[in-house]
Amino acid sequence: MEDKAQIQEAIKVQGEVVRKLKSEKASKEQIDEEVAKLLELKVRLGGDDGKHQFVLKTAKGTRDYNPKQMAIREKVFNTIISCFKRHGAETIDTPVFELKETLTGKYGEDSKLIYDLKDQGGELLSLRYDLTVPFARYLAMNKITNIKRYHIAKVYRRDNPAMTRGRYREFYQCDFDIAGQYDAMIPDAECLKIVHEILSELDLGDFRIKVNDRRILDGMFAVCGVPDDKFRTICSTVDKLDKMPWEEVKKEMVNEKGLSEEAADQIGEYVSMQGGMDLAERLLQDQKMSQSKLACAGLSDIKLLFSYLQLFQVTDKVVFDLSLARGLDYYTGIIYEAVLTQAGVAPVSNEAQNGTNAEESVNVGSVAGGGRYDGLVGMFDPKGRKVPCVGVSIGIERVFSIMEQKAEASAEKVRTTEVQVMVASAQKNLLEERLRLVTELWNAGIKAEVMYKMNPKLLSQLQYCEEAGIPLVAILGEQELKDGVVKLRVVATREEMDIARTDLISEIRRRTSEA
Amino acid sequence: MEDKAQIQEAIKVQGEVVRKLKSEKASKEQIDEEVAKLLELKVRLGGDDGKHQFVLKTAKGTRDYNPKQMAIREKVFNTIISCFKRHGAETIDTPVFELKETLTGKYGEDSKLIYDLKDQGGELLSLRYDLTVPFARYLAMNKITNIKRYHIAKVYRRDNPAMTRGRYREFYQCDFDIAGQYDAMIPDAECLKIVHEILSELDLGDFRIKVNDRRILDGMFAVCGVPDDKFRTICSTVDKLDKMPWEEVKKEMVNEKGLSEEAADQIGEYVSMQGGMDLAERLLQDQKMSQSKLACAGLSDIKLLFSYLQLFQVTDKVVFDLSLARGLDYYTGIIYEAVLTQAGVAPVSNEAQNGTNAEESVNVGSVAGGGRYDGLVGMFDPKGRKVPCVGVSIGIERVFSIMEQKAEASAEKVRTTEVQVMVASAQKNLLEERLRLVTELWNAGIKAEVMYKMNPKLLSQLQYCEEAGIPLVAILGEQELKDGVVKLRVVATREEMDIARTDLISEIRRRTSEA
Repeated sequence: MEDKAQIQEAIKVQGEVVRKLKSEKASKEQIDEEVAKLLELKVRLGGDDGKHQFVLKTAKGTRDYNPKQMAIREKVFNTIISCFKRHGAETIDTPVFELKETLTGKYGEDSKLIYDLKDQGGELLSLRYDLTVPFARYLAMNKITNIKRYHIAKVYRRDNPAMTRGRYREFYQCDFDIAGQYDAMIPDAECLKIVHEILSELDLGDFRIKVNDRRILDGMFAVCGVPDDKFRTICSTVDKLDKMPWEEVKKEMVNEKGLSEEAADQIGEYVSMQGGMDLAERLLQDQKMSQSKLACAGLSDIKLLFSYLQLFQVTDKVVFDLSLARGLDYYTGIIYEAVLTQAGVAPVSNEAQNGTNAEESVNVGSVAGGGRYDGLVGMFDPKGRKVPCVGVSIGIERVFSIMEQKAEASAEKVRTTEVQVMVASAQKNLLEERLRLVTELWNAGIKAEVMYKMNPKLLSQLQYCEEAGIPLVAILGEQELKDGVVKLRVVATREEMDIARTDLISEIRRRTSEA
Repeated sequence: MEDKAQIQEAIKVQGEVVRKLKSEKASKEQIDEEVAKLLELKVRLGGDDGKHQFVLKTAKGTRDYNPKQMAIREKVFNTIISCFKRHGAETIDTPVFELKETLTGKYGEDSKLIYDLKDQGGELLSLRYDLTVPFARYLAMNKITNIKRYHIAKVYRRDNPAMTRGRYREFYQCDFDIAGQYDAMIPDAECLKIVHEILSELDLGDFRIKVNDRRILDGMFAVCGVPDDKFRTICSTVDKLDKMPWEEVKKEMVNEKGLSEEAADQIGEYVSMQGGMDLAERLLQDQKMSQSKLACAGLSDIKLLFSYLQLFQVTDKVVFDLSLARGLDYYTGIIYEAVLTQAGVAPVSNEAQNGTNAEESVNVGSVAGGGRYDGLVGMFDPKGRKVPCVGVSIGIERVFSIMEQKAEASAEKVRTTEVQVMVASAQKNLLEERLRLVTELWNAGIKAEVMYKMNPKLLSQLQYCEEAGIPLVAILGEQELKDGVVKLRVVATREEMDIARTDLISEIRRRTSEA
């Protein structure tokens, strides 16, 4: 039993929080989050009125999409899918849960964020954490060695949600991957071309794509004197450079991870470097770096990559950045991450604001990332056969947030249906005639609606069209029926004209073909 | 610890099962299912070779969709979504899991089939069982009293899978619902119109839509002398009439449910009745039935419904069938179910084959169902405010199975990409030129591919096009580059022509505008 007085106190405090947020006109999402906490407390207190009382909410870190959000989502997906299809990708789908052991050992420390299903007898299952591991499982299971596929689906992470910043526990990933033994850097370059195309078409403001290579990182650690067994842990500290200033990163390396001050300083010099093909060339001549064969292989590939990126006309946005170190264990070669660089449109994260680096202060966060993972499929193959893979994942939730904000700021109304015409009547007792006409239109493939009332008022039918953005109204009356015509009204201009019943369908098509 | 000898014996038996199925050329799905069981047994036995050994499979009752299946799925979804949009529906989405208590008490006996998530701290969650309950939760939570929405998403049931017959634990539902206080039977009739349109357009062979009303069933039970407290259980026995002959249904009523023989016989007479508006009229005059006000209300509505169905031109497929009794607790008015009536295309279920009724033996099962549920939203509203709803759910997995079989039987190849042109080279050292040209095409919105090889053979590039169904090849060679042309090859006819580089894009568009 919980202490009732304690809960009542908590309810009082939480009530204050909600009132404060409301008075400050905080975002709806933020208020909703706090209201949900309040409701939970109230449920814990229990109702004394004996009525069924439960929390009317979605699970923590998840949300519904309303029709307006869905319209925006559909638009974003269409842009992304068109791009994937333009590049010749097929698509697959996998179940939302996998055998638990399929996900085991793939995500390092993040494994604690995996959702497990309850053991109800039978197999132990977990919700998928990303689309890459199920993809690798699919390839190994079906012995596929060659495929270019996209997969758009929800993934699940028991992370600390920050919904106002587009971080959810259930969220979409849009993945594009190329599996197969090919010549170096050609598929890798195409992945970057795809990121460039999508971010340009979505029109989210300026962006940058950072590129690095796992081999360059490892070679750099080696020549800077990092012991072999500390590569991974030092790498994950480097990964924090987009959220912390170098001083703090260095402190973590030296104080927490036990790296020598000298080694840390050498790393510090390298990870401040940014450039293009020229930087790769310079580092190939660098006295220290050139001692590592691994680093040289990575640097040569970066050079080759940039030569292809030039042909793809995307070098304007791509930066070779030695501070990029993506967390996931499975990357083996090139890695990349796209960030939006305009603060104006997107919510700036607190971490970024705390950064001392000027570049970081306008960094609104990663919207895409990926890299080469040549070993993952082999982890699933009973004989360890490898299938080289490279891919990219578009993190769509932040894009949705930005698009939603843009839609709200814009004067233009987001339509949630595609209805071309409303079949209305000006007088009573015309339900049958309306149903007859709307049937004609539906059967001709016209998107049409009719009000579900025996005798709706003309005014309410017209108002509905205004609200829903329906462009045309086909109005029936006794006179029109007698004359074999329909009065077609253009909602925007209020213009009305009589159209012969036989010409109505072609007239509607003509007037809505743009829409 | 399990008994090793016992498992080894089970492995031997299961191995025989698999060998037998293979020798009988059983379906791939059936063999895969049995192989999976075999692998599970082997894992339980444990490997003595020390190697990591795990089952490479999807969770029980689930499946991956390969690119060909996805192409078919996309086509089916497009047909369904077009229809929903034609009728002016918006769309929403809800999370894949809900608070456990949201699903509690909505599904009667079927509740045991709900997947729960493991308690990892925080809320208790369950995977959604259908889309109707989340929809009702969404309406109550957002205080929406009027909406016409569709929702296409996966739902989860820990049922006994029968994958060869399209019964899975993870499967799609395509739901269309109309919420709001409207005049009787108009939205209900539109739902049936939608089922009619979709099943006609999908071209699955002949079908029938059975219609009944919960009030007619309840009224019928009352006048036949069924005690009030047995309505629900007798109703679920009647629901088995599509899988069992009347004799067995009667036996269950009398022997298991304790109904009098006389009452059962009276029910038997009614549930054999099928017809249209005429049957509703006849029953309104029926001495016994007319004693129930509830039944009369239902019968009058059936009459009204048929009058609207006539205007919608769909009465050819709709049957008023008193044996239809859908299981779910939440229906309050009209209910319906669509069945395919041609055995040829679909897998005939075993149950149907056992039926004695001639009609049942060609019944390949339900592909759509729904009804009116005026009380469900009120269960979520703190003040119990009701929002009347009527809707339909298309059970798409069986449709997929049929479409897949059709595609396999047909000579026409299912394309899994939409690539219009392959950029190829006839000589070595033209990778850069190929990348330059494919960039031009991508930037112009043409769907194009290039092989990820420095020097691919022309033959292998052409073969790839044949296999993937790519209609055009743009071939580059030294001579073409010098002349400022591209050799465009039509894969189907092997016809080749030189096209000026400046005309290439419009020529490709012209030649693939049909596709």
